[in-house]
Amino acid sequence: MKFLQKYQDIIEDVIERCKFTGQPVQLYEPMNYILNLGGKRLRPIITLMACDLFGGDLNKAIKPALGIEYFHNFSLMHDDIMDKAPLRRGKETVHMKYDENVALLSGDALLVKSFRMLEDLEPELFKSCFQLFSQTALEVCEGQQYDMNFERQNEVLYEEYTHMITGKTAALCACSLKMGALIAEAVKEDAEYLYEFGRYLGVAFQLMDDYLDVFGNHEVVGKKSAGDIYENKKTILYILAQQEGNEEQKKELNFWFNSTEDTVEKIQGVVKIFKDLEADRLCLELIDKYTDQAREYLDKVNVSGEKKQPFYELMNYLLVRES
Amino acid sequence: MKFLQKYQDIIEDVIERCKFTGQPVQLYEPMNYILNLGGKRLRPIITLMACDLFGGDLNKAIKPALGIEYFHNFSLMHDDIMDKAPLRRGKETVHMKYDENVALLSGDALLVKSFRMLEDLEPELFKSCFQLFSQTALEVCEGQQYDMNFERQNEVLYEEYTHMITGKTAALCACSLKMGALIAEAVKEDAEYLYEFGRYLGVAFQLMDDYLDVFGNHEVVGKKSAGDIYENKKTILYILAQQEGNEEQKKELNFWFNSTEDTVEKIQGVVKIFKDLEADRLCLELIDKYTDQAREYLDKVNVSGEKKQPFYELMNYLLVRES
Repeated sequence: MKFLQKYQDIIEDVIERCKFTGQPVQLYEPMNYILNLGGKRLRPIITLMACDLFGGDLNKAIKPALGIEYFHNFSLMHDDIMDKAPLRRGKETVHMKYDENVALLSGDALLVKSFRMLEDLEPELFKSCFQLFSQTALEVCEGQQYDMNFERQNEVLYEEYTHMITGKTAALCACSLKMGALIAEAVKEDAEYLYEFGRYLGVAFQLMDDYLDVFGNHEVVGKKSAGDIYENKKTILYILAQQEGNEEQKKELNFWFNSTEDTVEKIQGVVKIFKDLEADRLCLELIDKYTDQAREYLDKVNVSGEKKQPFYELMNYLLVRES
Repeated sequence: MKFLQKYQDIIEDVIERCKFTGQPVQLYEPMNYILNLGGKRLRPIITLMACDLFGGDLNKAIKPALGIEYFHNFSLMHDDIMDKAPLRRGKETVHMKYDENVALLSGDALLVKSFRMLEDLEPELFKSCFQLFSQTALEVCEGQQYDMNFERQNEVLYEEYTHMITGKTAALCACSLKMGALIAEAVKEDAEYLYEFGRYLGVAFQLMDDYLDVFGNHEVVGKKSAGDIYENKKTILYILAQQEGNEEQKKELNFWFNSTEDTVEKIQGVVKIFKDLEADRLCLELIDKYTDQAREYLDKVNVSGEKKQPFYELMNYLLVRES
């Protein structure tokens, strides 16, 4: 997206300028490695956008935005260990390229580094940004733990699922926006509205991610089709189907999600249940619901519609992807 | 030690009062578990002692001291994963009792919690304490990485070793003291002197730990005799022996430290080399050297000798253990 490019360039530039050069290299080199795997840098970008929205000094927000990107990459490094994931953005994960101990310790240090990126802020602002950021960090850990718990539960309630993704995905999105607002010294209500906008947007984004994994156009999305089904991941589609299904359908769903089979038959079987129960339609309705709520909060932010335009565009960009 | 009791009681009390009760329990319960394994609580105790030394408000230092204890336990949780250690203080390690993913994630959250324990401090002080604490956290990670690197090196230089333990052990000791001084608003020089005192004390303490592992009275120390030799850990004794040995002795030492044998013969062989090369005497000399340097810094602190008395006693307590 063109309107994001300016911010993305700033982030890529600061990542490059702040390359880790510390010793021992075994600790710092994996941080550079994961940061160079790319990604859209959406989280730090929205910090900058939020700062701009309230007429803040963009320079002041750059390092904190970088801290957000560091944090995101720390969480990927550790999540990949926990998930035993071999690949991340088509390249080896840190624990595969180096080893698990390196990924563990380098992740720890990257987490510390992420908080340190706030240090150029004056003490009052430093403290409020730190409180927001560290509270978010805990929510992300909680979300990840719930996600791991779900692997052992046959039944996951819809409310449990949205609570989990609120922590694991949406909290950092909301935090990124609010931090930009805090740095720009936005009034408290506006910072809160933007936070809520980010939270609902983050949930909608994750639900869309779940939807597209199965029903998306995979040449556009660039991921393996139905990877979540192969991995028995309990996404919103599974949960909606569990909720809507009769005993037999639930049993079949459980059968497939307890098998480690990697066959087309499995995918077709699961997709058929999803479609029979209209989990796809229900999922899109949920996305609409969360998107509407996000939009309502954005509407409330006391800034001209023109200035908010990039945020409306961002919503479209993130949520109305080709499917 | 009687003079430590008062502070230890405060720490035990705040650990109990601040028990983790958050959700999900799988994330928070392991934090309570590791904190309840006990330990002498030396690090938070010296934070309180340092605050007292400069006539600070002890109440203000309690939560930050708790944060130091949290951090220490976070590092134990993750180190135990990396070392594949089955036991910690005679009980199951967190990753054995739960699993590795739990120990990893719960450790991450405990690290975040440790920084949050500074949050009751006013912004200026919060920022300076955070900077000290987070810089220390990075040094601890660096020390741990060097320690892991040493496992793959046959030769480790004396300077490399002391640099490693300065990060892994001494930095947090120094940080604990300086944080107490900062909270008590000690003058900058005194806070720095106390930091250096802690740094040298921490190195001396670790060297003594290495010494006692082999040459200590193990009923007093309460650890398995020569555990470091069984585990092929390159302690100061190994390094001094490598430094002093002829080709044949070095070769024998390398032979033993590359074997996973768990025999009395191995212990006797290694101890004989240590003794032949007087590694034990050289080690005690080094401990004296670091202890003297620690004492010199303590002498410099601009507070009456009477007030500093507990710190001199602490040195004796930590470094003149029965052997």
